[in-house]
Amino acid sequence: MCQPQHPSVSSTPTNSSSTSFVNSIQTWHLNSAAFTVVATFIFVQFRALLRSFLTRNAQRMVRASISSLRGKLSEGEERGSDRRKSSNKKEENGEEKEYVDKGVGSDLDMAIEEHDNILQQYPVELPYHPIKLTEHEMLKRSQLFYEQMKSRRSVRCFSSKPVSIKLVQNLIKTAGTSPSGANMQPWTFCIVQSPKIKRAIREVVEEQEQLNYTRRMGAQWVLDVSHLNVNWNKPYLTEAPYLIVVMKHPYYLDEQGERKPTHYSEQSTSIAVGIMVAAIQNAGLVTVVSTPLNAGSAIREILQRPINEKVSVLLPLGYPAEGVLVPDIRKRNIEDIMRIY
Amino acid sequence: MCQPQHPSVSSTPTNSSSTSFVNSIQTWHLNSAAFTVVATFIFVQFRALLRSFLTRNAQRMVRASISSLRGKLSEGEERGSDRRKSSNKKEENGEEKEYVDKGVGSDLDMAIEEHDNILQQYPVELPYHPIKLTEHEMLKRSQLFYEQMKSRRSVRCFSSKPVSIKLVQNLIKTAGTSPSGANMQPWTFCIVQSPKIKRAIREVVEEQEQLNYTRRMGAQWVLDVSHLNVNWNKPYLTEAPYLIVVMKHPYYLDEQGERKPTHYSEQSTSIAVGIMVAAIQNAGLVTVVSTPLNAGSAIREILQRPINEKVSVLLPLGYPAEGVLVPDIRKRNIEDIMRIY
Repeated sequence: MCQPQHPSVSSTPTNSSSTSFVNSIQTWHLNSAAFTVVATFIFVQFRALLRSFLTRNAQRMVRASISSLRGKLSEGEERGSDRRKSSNKKEENGEEKEYVDKGVGSDLDMAIEEHDNILQQYPVELPYHPIKLTEHEMLKRSQLFYEQMKSRRSVRCFSSKPVSIKLVQNLIKTAGTSPSGANMQPWTFCIVQSPKIKRAIREVVEEQEQLNYTRRMGAQWVLDVSHLNVNWNKPYLTEAPYLIVVMKHPYYLDEQGERKPTHYSEQSTSIAVGIMVAAIQNAGLVTVVSTPLNAGSAIREILQRPINEKVSVLLPLGYPAEGVLVPDIRKRNIEDIMRIY
Repeated sequence: MCQPQHPSVSSTPTNSSSTSFVNSIQTWHLNSAAFTVVATFIFVQFRALLRSFLTRNAQRMVRASISSLRGKLSEGEERGSDRRKSSNKKEENGEEKEYVDKGVGSDLDMAIEEHDNILQQYPVELPYHPIKLTEHEMLKRSQLFYEQMKSRRSVRCFSSKPVSIKLVQNLIKTAGTSPSGANMQPWTFCIVQSPKIKRAIREVVEEQEQLNYTRRMGAQWVLDVSHLNVNWNKPYLTEAPYLIVVMKHPYYLDEQGERKPTHYSEQSTSIAVGIMVAAIQNAGLVTVVSTPLNAGSAIREILQRPINEKVSVLLPLGYPAEGVLVPDIRKRNIEDIMRIY
């Protein structure tokens, strides 16, 4: 069984005391039910305020204690920085490298202990209320959701039929519920309606794609996508009523203009894209996840996004064109993608 | 309007000829309706066989023409390989670098042209049948899906209550419908039920996490996760009835044992994780996306996965523990994550 690490201080008020208080109030000729509602509301608001104050206080204390430690560590950090740069390389193509974010010394143990103590005093946790379903319902829902997602296809020909912006907002809001490293939500969703900006983006993408196909990606890529009937023409970037440019934030700039890392921005943003793809399918619209290889910085400039935002993917959004064709592809069977241990 | 790039040859048979054929068959005393069904079935099967043969033939032709070009290019490739290695670095922390996959020369234009010609002769596309919903339905569905995803939380305390493997399979199948670079589906989902293997994985993760917190990630990470009440203890890795280890394939090994790149394996696998997170929430179960920093290769060895598979994330899966608490976090408002152009 799992023991919550920090027991919550936010227990609900005992009924007996609040009831006697309400009883005494009845002499004021107030409806007791209405009063209970108001009192609960005030209590919840007050609790939230108090908690927010305590949390901020706790975080300030951690910040102060850590920044004092930082001074002592700064020398060691400078020494370590070159080593860190080389070990931050990604492990895409072979051996894994140890990932090191900040080369801080073991003195930090003290700060962590202090931070743990502070959090134990002021826990910032809330009860979680799960949805309750029967096993049969769960199985049925999972089956239906699978069928729904299975009917999704990447569509590359769009109708110009308009889509309400309210619907698009719902999709963005859904993507915004995604989990992310340290809950930093390192993403911005740029919705492009303007034909002029869509055209500008398409131009830089097609220009780069032509180079990608002929010079950069090479023969293997051309073979690998041959069954998809795709080439460097990207009509969907201008045809769809919306082009959603998903930006990831590998870092952010604090008030002093200093770079602070976010965590797992690539993975977090892609998980958000996955949830948005599911939301788009659920809403009856179509998209294709388009990766604008080498065109990212040009797109960032067209959209005038800040320097800490990098283009992740492009998602044209709309209805499919009438009579649209899709590549005759298959998904691997579950036996080929699943192993049980 | 969008013109399909390669007009389809697979038009449905004209009704008139098939009708007259059926009529002549009636002398054999067969029910004409039943016959039509059988004939259609045979026709479809035959068309699929023919298409599969033509496609394979086309791909073999492309392969041959490209490999002949490869010979001419090999000298140039060797010269370019050093340059390529340095330009393949990721753009996580600042300036973007041009991404180059294979440094092939411009002679490839010929191969591509040939490949396009072949595909024009034998298109491998099928009609897409979109679901039709009214605008009102779409808006309502998008709203409901948002509400459903909004109620999702990363849960770190699990009940030991069992979950049927059929349900888990539905979730994996759903993740398997995700889009991926060149449809290569570069993923494997390892479902760990064995308490012994779960324990072994938890041990290597906690050992590395302790180092991550104190030495590698450093003060900034500790601060960034301070509001989440997390530390290097990962009880959820053994408590949940299932631990799903998601593997990405940065490359695969062909029949000759040669490394062939997949495309966008990191992004593709994370998008699949996003769709699975949505499926888990839809099914009424909980998870937390756990990133086993620096423990990937040890986990790969525990699971005896091939060298081309890398650990992406860990997803413990099950019911939440009774009375579980979750961190008091908020998601950014839509105004903060959306820009309209």
